[in-house]
Amino acid sequence: MTPLARYLPILDWGRSYTGAQMSSDLIAAVIVTIMLIPQSLAYALLAGLPPEAGIYASIVPILLYAVFGTSRVLAVGPVAVVSLMTAVAVGQVAEQGTIGYALAALSLALLSGVMLLAMGLLRLGFLANFLSHPVIAGFITASGVLIAASQLKHILGVPAQGHTLLEMAASLAAHGAETSLLTLAIGAGAVAFLFWVRKGLKPLLLRLGLPPGLADFAVKAGPVGAVVATTVLVQAYGLHTQGVAIVGAVPQSLPPLTLPSFSLELLNTLLVPALLISVIGFVESVSVAQTLAARKRQRIDPDQELIGLGAANLGAAFTGGFPVTGGFARSVVNYDAGAETPAAGAFTAAGLAIAALFLTPLVYFLPKATLAATIIVAVLSLVDFSILKRTWVYSKADFLAVAATLLMTLGLGVEAGVSAGVIMSLLLHLYKTSRPHVAEVGRVPGTEHFRNIRRHKVETSPGLLSLRIDESLYFVNARFLENLVLDRLARDKDLRNVVLMCSAVNEIDYSALENLEAINQRLKEQGIGLHLSEVKGPVMDRLQKTHFLEELNGRVYLSQFHAWQELSAA
Amino acid sequence: MTPLARYLPILDWGRSYTGAQMSSDLIAAVIVTIMLIPQSLAYALLAGLPPEAGIYASIVPILLYAVFGTSRVLAVGPVAVVSLMTAVAVGQVAEQGTIGYALAALSLALLSGVMLLAMGLLRLGFLANFLSHPVIAGFITASGVLIAASQLKHILGVPAQGHTLLEMAASLAAHGAETSLLTLAIGAGAVAFLFWVRKGLKPLLLRLGLPPGLADFAVKAGPVGAVVATTVLVQAYGLHTQGVAIVGAVPQSLPPLTLPSFSLELLNTLLVPALLISVIGFVESVSVAQTLAARKRQRIDPDQELIGLGAANLGAAFTGGFPVTGGFARSVVNYDAGAETPAAGAFTAAGLAIAALFLTPLVYFLPKATLAATIIVAVLSLVDFSILKRTWVYSKADFLAVAATLLMTLGLGVEAGVSAGVIMSLLLHLYKTSRPHVAEVGRVPGTEHFRNIRRHKVETSPGLLSLRIDESLYFVNARFLENLVLDRLARDKDLRNVVLMCSAVNEIDYSALENLEAINQRLKEQGIGLHLSEVKGPVMDRLQKTHFLEELNGRVYLSQFHAWQELSAA
Repeated sequence: MTPLARYLPILDWGRSYTGAQMSSDLIAAVIVTIMLIPQSLAYALLAGLPPEAGIYASIVPILLYAVFGTSRVLAVGPVAVVSLMTAVAVGQVAEQGTIGYALAALSLALLSGVMLLAMGLLRLGFLANFLSHPVIAGFITASGVLIAASQLKHILGVPAQGHTLLEMAASLAAHGAETSLLTLAIGAGAVAFLFWVRKGLKPLLLRLGLPPGLADFAVKAGPVGAVVATTVLVQAYGLHTQGVAIVGAVPQSLPPLTLPSFSLELLNTLLVPALLISVIGFVESVSVAQTLAARKRQRIDPDQELIGLGAANLGAAFTGGFPVTGGFARSVVNYDAGAETPAAGAFTAAGLAIAALFLTPLVYFLPKATLAATIIVAVLSLVDFSILKRTWVYSKADFLAVAATLLMTLGLGVEAGVSAGVIMSLLLHLYKTSRPHVAEVGRVPGTEHFRNIRRHKVETSPGLLSLRIDESLYFVNARFLENLVLDRLARDKDLRNVVLMCSAVNEIDYSALENLEAINQRLKEQGIGLHLSEVKGPVMDRLQKTHFLEELNGRVYLSQFHAWQELSAA
Repeated sequence: MTPLARYLPILDWGRSYTGAQMSSDLIAAVIVTIMLIPQSLAYALLAGLPPEAGIYASIVPILLYAVFGTSRVLAVGPVAVVSLMTAVAVGQVAEQGTIGYALAALSLALLSGVMLLAMGLLRLGFLANFLSHPVIAGFITASGVLIAASQLKHILGVPAQGHTLLEMAASLAAHGAETSLLTLAIGAGAVAFLFWVRKGLKPLLLRLGLPPGLADFAVKAGPVGAVVATTVLVQAYGLHTQGVAIVGAVPQSLPPLTLPSFSLELLNTLLVPALLISVIGFVESVSVAQTLAARKRQRIDPDQELIGLGAANLGAAFTGGFPVTGGFARSVVNYDAGAETPAAGAFTAAGLAIAALFLTPLVYFLPKATLAATIIVAVLSLVDFSILKRTWVYSKADFLAVAATLLMTLGLGVEAGVSAGVIMSLLLHLYKTSRPHVAEVGRVPGTEHFRNIRRHKVETSPGLLSLRIDESLYFVNARFLENLVLDRLARDKDLRNVVLMCSAVNEIDYSALENLEAINQRLKEQGIGLHLSEVKGPVMDRLQKTHFLEELNGRVYLSQFHAWQELSAA
């Protein structure tokens, strides 16, 4: 691959673009555009921004991702979790509804874009691996709950606020008496309708004889139905004069050229939130892209994905948007609708541009409660507490990491939650490796194979102690091994030879080397041999650079069986 | 062991205390007391406290350690690194020479004592393992340089200050013109004399026919000689009236009963420094105690050591002292002088109490430059830059950790240095495990042993891919394995079976399990078998709690040899 093609995947698929692909892409684009109009407005509302920001954030970013991204079907734009994180981060520096707020959202997209781009050029895609699957699952579930809770104020029509469950509950309780019953009726009705569309509409349509493809499309169009119905209702009865909040005037315009604020103080405050948004957004996007690519036996390149998402966020920063990433729902719809290349994304962008120019007057009477309802129904499908049970059964350490993430996210907000999850899972990993499993092994009779004497019927030999160390030796556990060997030494007076079976030792760092030297010294003083077996190539290479092997009071055996043959005869 | 005896090791050795042990202990105590008088004064100076604080800090803490500590020969009191860290921490909250400064030092000892005690009761001694040997070595060397540099102002007789090398150099340069030549003569003379005592005195005495024991004692008494000579010099010629700073009046008193400040704001500010002091002090103390215990085939209990050191620091907090720990120099002298039980420490405490009551007028004319000289000579023996070369040869990751510790300590101070070292070594470890070594293995002909096909002459079988994974599988590297297997899959079209040899896989966490499921799914779709071999007991236990083994498109073999026999025939 030429360097240019590597950084511009569009050169790859663009060269062989066919008419058949184009018609598939066009059909997909129409379906995705229809779905994205209400979704974009809703996520702008969630991020605390004017509705048009959601549409702008879906146009130029999609185009840029089509040029730089490696996934064929990923759809980039505002997504629920990132929109919530944007609201939290920007809410710390500006008041919703002010110019400063919109400006800070642009700066957040700028920072996030620069970080993603830098990580991509430095090939730091592996950093995303620091988020374990259970931590991600816990975070998504807790964020879903938080997002749904944050929309209750629009359903009730009250001016509540807060970034944690407790704050939201307290604020809702304080404003409860101001509830607008008309708004509540519209909001609750829309929620009920949308849930019914998800569960009950498709079976009904199939029973009525509709082909499955069309029934699926009807389900996807459900939110549009709710939008149309409630907009008509408000306009017909003038409900906006009776306390129902509506979207109101949205400018008819293509995405404007905008400049984010470059205030150093602002950028400094947004640094950590931007990093978290970048990493979370990247992880969400890559998971979706990998899942969809795998279905078609395609591969994506995580480092180039960083570049694609970085470009998309820079695009958002300069065209009136806010942080974006590859979304699950929109990408799945794109895939299901038959998109074959990123050109489908470009067509979607065109569709949204047309909507921004000509269709915005139609949403004037759209109640905010309807948008809140679409958000609630969308995010509640992400909520899945079963991760708690599954990790509890499998591993208490994973369970602890999930529980910490969930509780911290709900109790202290998204940034604290995801940080706690990462730190907790790293510390638990270090703790586990600090007390490695060490098994005394014996020979499985009649074979050259050695297993734990406590789990298998094996032969042992008097005076010979064979220990299989089930962990790399490094500073965190270096002293552990020394203590263990010296304890065994104190208990077993007939010991003549100790073999450390190193089949599971993937590294010996400098600290562990010093502890091995100390063990060797102590055994030598007592006339006991110290031997190693099954030392791996990379570990052996490194030991050979030291004096340890010369000073070793014993030998290094290629296999534990060789050690056994020679030392059990002794 | 009864719970009481576990927490009170004195009940163990105290019960069988003999007259012979007592006379050994008494002799050791006399020698240590003589050495400790100038040392205690010097470390108080280093910590920025009045000289008597150093003596007080050596009395009650020693007694408490004798009751609660597990080492027979550890000598507890002020040590160089901890004294420097005290000066840095307390200097942030109060001005040297004020009551507030001394009070903050007491509070620091209190916090440190409470932390050590809590860590001991919670059995958190393993936390000390988070400091790798190279990081400790780098830190000790850099601290030695910093401490020596910090004493130059006393040698020159100027009021310089600063906590980093640059700050000190700038401050010394600014005050250079004020240098007191008389002070410089005394200080430089003392430094030269003390270096000569270390290097040249013993050979000279041996040549003069002195027995080696007495020659050693003369070397140890060198600082006392310098103290006596320069004190007499100052008094005889009235040099203190000509610009030579002297210790001056020291109260004749037993350690006073003192109350540390319990101001929440102060304690909050000192929290992090106290934690670092506790951990560094504990690591230094345990290393010394373990080294000396090993020489006599004794063991120490790190968790009980935490309790012993915690009690000692609480003692310091309430008797006019400052943070203490087990010191290298004083413990080695105690050991060499023949101490057999912690009673030697108690006798030392009695000796120092007598000194505090009756001998303090003798140090009135002692020049501070002499104390600075004893510190410089003592700490420069700790400076050893060879750790840089040794780690460079062995492992670049260890080298990076040392270099970071050294540079950060010298450039930004002790707290930044030790934090950087710990964080750097942990991140490097995580980075290494994020890209594990994976070897394709084949059979060593005629054996049941399997090794890397690139390093050994081995047999392979067409259609069978055996991969030995040289790392535990956990979230940081889970996706790595998936990518690796899928890449192999794309390249090798004749593949029929994949065996993952798990002899080095010590853990499979929930994230890695999900990736294994994904790998299994992909291989199953293409009709390729996925097998595991040599799965360890604890890993297997956990897999059996899931559906993974039922869904596995292949088998789990006890040994790689079994897998080979069955699958290479296929």
